Amino acid sequence: MSHSTDASKDRETGSNFMPKFDDRGLLTAVVTDSSSGEVLMVAFMNEEALALTQETGVAHFWSRSRQALWKKGETSGNTLQVDEVLVDCDQDALVLRCTPAGPTCHTGAVSCFYRKLEDDGLTRVLS
Amino acid sequence: MSHSTDASKDRETGSNFMPKFDDRGLLTAVVTDSSSGEVLMVAFMNEEALALTQETGVAHFWSRSRQALWKKGETSGNTLQVDEVLVDCDQDALVLRCTPAGPTCHTGAVSCFYRKLEDDGLTRVLS
Repeated sequence: MSHSTDASKDRETGSNFMPKFDDRGLLTAVVTDSSSGEVLMVAFMNEEALALTQETGVAHFWSRSRQALWKKGETSGNTLQVDEVLVDCDQDALVLRCTPAGPTCHTGAVSCFYRKLEDDGLTRVLS
Repeated sequence: MSHSTDASKDRETGSNFMPKFDDRGLLTAVVTDSSSGEVLMVAFMNEEALALTQETGVAHFWSRSRQALWKKGETSGNTLQVDEVLVDCDQDALVLRCTPAGPTCHTGAVSCFYRKLEDDGLTRVLS
């Protein structure tokens, strides 16, 4: 109990990076545009994706649907250059401030969040 | 196969809200500040948390650690008024653009993302 409390306190207040992977071995990663600040996409990282992102400066994720490591833009060329990484209080989520090489969404939209939820459904807000 | 492809296409291009809960029954929710655009926190929503958020206009989540429904700010008073909800391409993540009643992080910081990852550890970037 006290050990767990200490670890939790270290995670929150300390200067050590102690990523807390969930029971599937994943962190949540929110990608924002370094220039506009807009949220571009949300994805997940396992330990390998995080290590590759740190080593290369290019965003890598873990695809839950394909159960595979995924270098964002590997096929499309629309990679994400990571300018800064922010870490949350309990170290289970990251914000990656990035410079995108092209549209982030596989649909061609600048951001995956191109629709707004209204009472009667979704309205497109980005082209 | 074609059914799955159609459903996937509807989710991406359609105007119907068809939230895709993961195998734990959860969506990822990214909270941003409506005024500054900054990412304030990341959390998860089950179907009930989503319904309560839509009904009340105040952010509700599912706590994975406590395995309980959670009205953000219920204890602290630091609720989040939801101004707009954005939905991503495959409808498994939401951006909640909110007006916070106080500091969002339970540590008292404006945002949970108060530290930056550097080569040698974490550096505080928000008070």
